[in-house]
Amino acid sequence: MRNVTKDNITDVFMGYMGDDVNPRLREVMGSLVSHLHAFAKEVNLTHAEWEQGIAFLERTGDISDKERHEFVLLSDVLGLSSLVDMINTQSEGTSSSVLGPFHISGAPPLDIGGDMKGRFEGPVLLSEGIVKDTDGEPIEGATVDIWQTAPNGLYSSQDPDQDTYSFHGLQTTGPDGRYAFTSVKPVEYEVPTDGPIGEFFEACGRHAWRPSHLHFIVKADGFKSLVTEVFPDDDPYLDKDTVFGVRDDLVMSYQQMPAGSFPDGFALSGQVDEAYLRVDFDLVLVKG
Amino acid sequence: MRNVTKDNITDVFMGYMGDDVNPRLREVMGSLVSHLHAFAKEVNLTHAEWEQGIAFLERTGDISDKERHEFVLLSDVLGLSSLVDMINTQSEGTSSSVLGPFHISGAPPLDIGGDMKGRFEGPVLLSEGIVKDTDGEPIEGATVDIWQTAPNGLYSSQDPDQDTYSFHGLQTTGPDGRYAFTSVKPVEYEVPTDGPIGEFFEACGRHAWRPSHLHFIVKADGFKSLVTEVFPDDDPYLDKDTVFGVRDDLVMSYQQMPAGSFPDGFALSGQVDEAYLRVDFDLVLVKG
Repeated sequence: MRNVTKDNITDVFMGYMGDDVNPRLREVMGSLVSHLHAFAKEVNLTHAEWEQGIAFLERTGDISDKERHEFVLLSDVLGLSSLVDMINTQSEGTSSSVLGPFHISGAPPLDIGGDMKGRFEGPVLLSEGIVKDTDGEPIEGATVDIWQTAPNGLYSSQDPDQDTYSFHGLQTTGPDGRYAFTSVKPVEYEVPTDGPIGEFFEACGRHAWRPSHLHFIVKADGFKSLVTEVFPDDDPYLDKDTVFGVRDDLVMSYQQMPAGSFPDGFALSGQVDEAYLRVDFDLVLVKG
Repeated sequence: MRNVTKDNITDVFMGYMGDDVNPRLREVMGSLVSHLHAFAKEVNLTHAEWEQGIAFLERTGDISDKERHEFVLLSDVLGLSSLVDMINTQSEGTSSSVLGPFHISGAPPLDIGGDMKGRFEGPVLLSEGIVKDTDGEPIEGATVDIWQTAPNGLYSSQDPDQDTYSFHGLQTTGPDGRYAFTSVKPVEYEVPTDGPIGEFFEACGRHAWRPSHLHFIVKADGFKSLVTEVFPDDDPYLDKDTVFGVRDDLVMSYQQMPAGSFPDGFALSGQVDEAYLRVDFDLVLVKG
């Protein structure tokens, strides 16, 4: 349009859309582009700043691959991921929290009571809970996809010393809705700073730390899928998680259990004599 | 922060910034993230939509390389590039217009009066003008980086049948500030639709056409650099340029010149007997 101006360009953009565009796409795109244009005008964005932004996105693309999801990390550190979690959390269910960039599909099945610790050293953690609906009824046949870092603070996809599915497991609940496994206590860690997000932290004077956590994706027929995390209540980064992921209902006590008290029914039963940690965390799904 | 909410997350984001952050970065980032968060809340962005957006950015990164700048194209089709051009155009100078994704650095020097047409067939176009300041004084020693598509509508970087710098040239003005070259008449063309931007057009019911144009980047010591284009006034896409690049002062008549009138002082002088086209387009730089 020859007479496109700073003031009408958003309207011109909307006018370019076809008449039979999906109404939701029109709504989302209209809001996105209105805000993008308003941002540029509000700060009088310069060409040099625009070029910096484009180059940042290009570097983010360059470092991304099937196992490294730098755009997810970008969304995480800008608070967008957590905002989407909060927008879509229903008060009766367990809060959503960030997926993060390190989930990999295809985790091997893990028996109820199975072990993810394997050859790794570290404080034994027993984690269990019930997958249930908002009435408290256990959900049978729910899948619980679990992943966490190794004791060195790295996920398997970041760490050539780990197998692909190290510290990843997929449990399927029985009639009691129970998941249960052993692992090592997760550790706080820095999100990757060797890429564009590291530059972002540096420029913004921000740290890269996340409080320690276990990740879960829970799915069951007839229920909304849940992506969440559980945090120990003594972690020093709970109030300054660099990806804004902590919610009150996701902070649990990792109880110190005395030596000699390790229960039956686990792969490690009979092998753990010393004190260990235990976290109980129920996962409440919303119908839909 | 354990009590981060939909309502305070933008403030929490700003609170994460260090005290000695560059003030302009704080301003730009604050505005960008405020608008990003406002967008997500305004449309109640779902997880599925967020995933679609992340996957779109990942595909945009995947198709990008040193010669294909899909993020620039994304900025172009969203109107952001043109908005930045308009924000930064000063009324006394020639309007800025989109750089586009196909500029490549290092174009070979082209004598004043030189030819970019080479072996290609098509209507001969003679293009010339004066690089001058806002008082109308010619600027000596200005560089004019020129590029355009071949007659098939493809830039050299898109077309294995063209040499790297086919239809690219770099002129340096003498004391008269004049640039001048011959080429073929540029053609209207579609921006690339074989990547994520093609999906965007499809979803939005939009066409991919740009009116025909010549690209220029003009630089001179003591002046702001100018990125611009010149369009013929009879192009059918002037009022619906898919990247919003057309401005009134960039639309020029491509005059039909009679057979036998081709002037001296050009590489093609003595070789062009037939009718040809001529566009005169002065490039006015703003001090700074």
